[in-house]
Amino acid sequence: MQLKIKKIGIRTGGPLISLIHEKTAQLMDLHDGDRIDIKYDHKVTTAIIDIAYSEKIIKPGQLGLFVDITNKLKIKNNNRVTVTVSNKPKSLKYIKKKLDGKKLTAREIDCIVKDIAENKLTDIELTYFVSACYTSIMDFKETVALTKSMISNGDVLKLKRHPVIDKHCVGGVAGNRTTMIVVPIIAAAGLTIPKTSSRSITSPAGTADTMEVLCDVSLPLERMKSIVHKHNGCLTWGGAINLAPADDKIIKVEHPLSIDARSQLLASILAKKGSVSATHILVDIPIGKGAKIEDKKVALDLKNDFETIGKHLNMKIKAIISDGSQPIGNGHGPALEARDVMWLLKGDPKGPLDLREKSLYMAGLIIEMAGKAKKGKGRKIAEEILDSGKAYKKMTEIIRAQGENTPLEKIRVGRLQKDVFAKKSGKISHIDNKTISKIARIAGAPRSVGAGLYLYYHVGDRVKKGDKLYTIYSESKDKMKFALGITEKDTGITIR
Amino acid sequence: MQLKIKKIGIRTGGPLISLIHEKTAQLMDLHDGDRIDIKYDHKVTTAIIDIAYSEKIIKPGQLGLFVDITNKLKIKNNNRVTVTVSNKPKSLKYIKKKLDGKKLTAREIDCIVKDIAENKLTDIELTYFVSACYTSIMDFKETVALTKSMISNGDVLKLKRHPVIDKHCVGGVAGNRTTMIVVPIIAAAGLTIPKTSSRSITSPAGTADTMEVLCDVSLPLERMKSIVHKHNGCLTWGGAINLAPADDKIIKVEHPLSIDARSQLLASILAKKGSVSATHILVDIPIGKGAKIEDKKVALDLKNDFETIGKHLNMKIKAIISDGSQPIGNGHGPALEARDVMWLLKGDPKGPLDLREKSLYMAGLIIEMAGKAKKGKGRKIAEEILDSGKAYKKMTEIIRAQGENTPLEKIRVGRLQKDVFAKKSGKISHIDNKTISKIARIAGAPRSVGAGLYLYYHVGDRVKKGDKLYTIYSESKDKMKFALGITEKDTGITIR
Repeated sequence: MQLKIKKIGIRTGGPLISLIHEKTAQLMDLHDGDRIDIKYDHKVTTAIIDIAYSEKIIKPGQLGLFVDITNKLKIKNNNRVTVTVSNKPKSLKYIKKKLDGKKLTAREIDCIVKDIAENKLTDIELTYFVSACYTSIMDFKETVALTKSMISNGDVLKLKRHPVIDKHCVGGVAGNRTTMIVVPIIAAAGLTIPKTSSRSITSPAGTADTMEVLCDVSLPLERMKSIVHKHNGCLTWGGAINLAPADDKIIKVEHPLSIDARSQLLASILAKKGSVSATHILVDIPIGKGAKIEDKKVALDLKNDFETIGKHLNMKIKAIISDGSQPIGNGHGPALEARDVMWLLKGDPKGPLDLREKSLYMAGLIIEMAGKAKKGKGRKIAEEILDSGKAYKKMTEIIRAQGENTPLEKIRVGRLQKDVFAKKSGKISHIDNKTISKIARIAGAPRSVGAGLYLYYHVGDRVKKGDKLYTIYSESKDKMKFALGITEKDTGITIR
Repeated sequence: MQLKIKKIGIRTGGPLISLIHEKTAQLMDLHDGDRIDIKYDHKVTTAIIDIAYSEKIIKPGQLGLFVDITNKLKIKNNNRVTVTVSNKPKSLKYIKKKLDGKKLTAREIDCIVKDIAENKLTDIELTYFVSACYTSIMDFKETVALTKSMISNGDVLKLKRHPVIDKHCVGGVAGNRTTMIVVPIIAAAGLTIPKTSSRSITSPAGTADTMEVLCDVSLPLERMKSIVHKHNGCLTWGGAINLAPADDKIIKVEHPLSIDARSQLLASILAKKGSVSATHILVDIPIGKGAKIEDKKVALDLKNDFETIGKHLNMKIKAIISDGSQPIGNGHGPALEARDVMWLLKGDPKGPLDLREKSLYMAGLIIEMAGKAKKGKGRKIAEEILDSGKAYKKMTEIIRAQGENTPLEKIRVGRLQKDVFAKKSGKISHIDNKTISKIARIAGAPRSVGAGLYLYYHVGDRVKKGDKLYTIYSESKDKMKFALGITEKDTGITIR
């Protein structure tokens, strides 16, 4: 059937959708969710249809296309296209197979991942896949195939270097900006570390948010590559490049029910590492009260899974279980964390000691994994690089190469500042990651870069009633009021 | 936060969606799929947000609302509303619980069904529920609770009559319009049968499509009720009324992967029956090569499930296993089937005998179930009602009460007619339901009411090479050409 194009100036970013009027749908015997092939000027694309029941946006005989498709077909308003009914993608058969509890072959998994990466599946179909992997957990073989497919159905940073280092933290600890200390140390040690990070979802700041205070992080793949070749490392935002795109689409669908299928979690993480050609990876699994993982047995299982799958993927993976029972670093929020990091790199005594210790430990392990030091000797090399100023120099190089935004002395923290005081004297027995994150986020972090909070104590410290526990920073009176309201009920700090 | 309304003149019919600009989302720390409470003039409604990344449809500070919500809030363009972040509905916790393989309580199931019926869940969330019920099949207790919730979260046709009869066919057989014969017989027998039917999804015509050739079928509940009180029965389209609305939404999500979770199938069917207060139900399960169910064991299990759950729901259910290995009736397509039905009721010898036999058998069983005849004596009563013309008279009454469209003699079948001939001589060993349905649909049925095909033979009949097997009817040259193209490869009729 011939239809006339009407461009709809919206980018969905998700499944390729086309809009037709109810009457056109009747003529073609099409239903919501059916697929059509759209042919224009020798190009064909497949889209899922949505049916409009009024003529306000789409009239009978028109085909409404979102920006995602009009760009692909290079098509204009009123161009005529030929539309035919399309077969269901094969991947649906394999999703059904997995939902029925059966194992998938590597070829079947690749067919599904390809369709996900190319936006050929609807949210409903994708949800069935996530659901299937959650109820029938993938085995190692399937997980390895899933990881490889995620990598190959996206861009890959190819580097003629060996080893290529990466690190990952399972998350859930406020602050914990070790990446921004480890990367310059490792790069200064002569090792290659092309680091991509994510933005915050539930914390006061992600590594990408924090780095963005200092310099650009949205770099195209080619620029990232040339920076890594020149400086051994970078600190960019993974969302700016098309590494393992299927992964992001899967995560979006997991979000509403907070599903995390073990096999998918592993594949997700390792696909991002494989996409930057990483050969040696250190994984940090923080555990403790208030962390994402509270149970040691769960952490040990995860460590084992990481290391085993690493072997199948020809990646050398070391997973460590660290203390995640309290926030790490003093600042919480993009600008406050960026300041902590730069103080620490520069050798300023205001640099947080806990962050220094954890970063040196991790950098040391990486140096050993890469064969640059014997077991137990890595930390000393890392310390020398940090204390000599070489890591700071390397960070400055990377920041300038990525495009500097703000030097340390010009970092602006929130205009409004309010202190929160100890309500009694005693020893601090717990600082709750979730509560600290919540207060910082309500104060405006990470969208408002100067917002967040600055902690003066750690677990084990003694305080007197009336001592300043932390300062809240915000740019908005309302947000400050709301954040202070939370602290009245619960400061997040337990004093015994 | 205060936002200004922009009405978007589209009815989604699905989840309650509101549209905000990316910048507004950032300010409120909202993500795709989050929920907001919209307060206007003392009314509050919850909606799921979609984020727009351009200003073409929604500008920062605006809140885009679809017709579904603007009608509910009685709101105009530029009205100001207060928007706050809403908590996730409790039902999500229960969906996760089911996905984890646990049993749900009646209260938890009701919470989920209520949110489905009120469009409070996104397609992703609903898919997780369907998926969960598919991988962890509900037990009898859960299925009964699901059925009861589906009934109570929708309209109910309350009748002061007993017994109230209903019938159901599991489907998959072309033609098979027994309902339109059984309803007038049963109503003429003095029993109450408030029948709602569906439109076709994959067959050449559904009962609602066929009845619509003769009269209106989209009747509001109150009119349906008064017709049943006056004439003992009706034949309307279930989609026009709000009976067990959660069911239709679940079916929509099952469609893409052709999921049918046994427990949901049962609950779906019985909820529709419960919504019209049915007390006695005859269920037809056709089996055979080419039918929806091919295996006798599966059919027997389903029969047992129906009858057992019926007991828990205080419904008297009898399930029969019938021959579904070939189409029933001669016409296939709305007008062609309506003509068959009216010929049969009127006593015209052109009325198909197989349809007559099956309908009399079923009507007889219903008369026995309702206690109007002893076992084995029902068929005779049904036959007397049909042959005396009482059933035809009752059908005419019902048609007039619903609003007559076309009398028998004015039923128009497709303008274009082409015959398909036997390619060899022999005995007909199989007539394939799926192929016959496909040819009729490609010829234009059910959207084009006159389209379809008319069969001259049944399984077991002998034909000679060149004999006319069936006539295809269509209103479109292209569709006729396409349908004939199919028959060249496969007529759907096997001659041995």
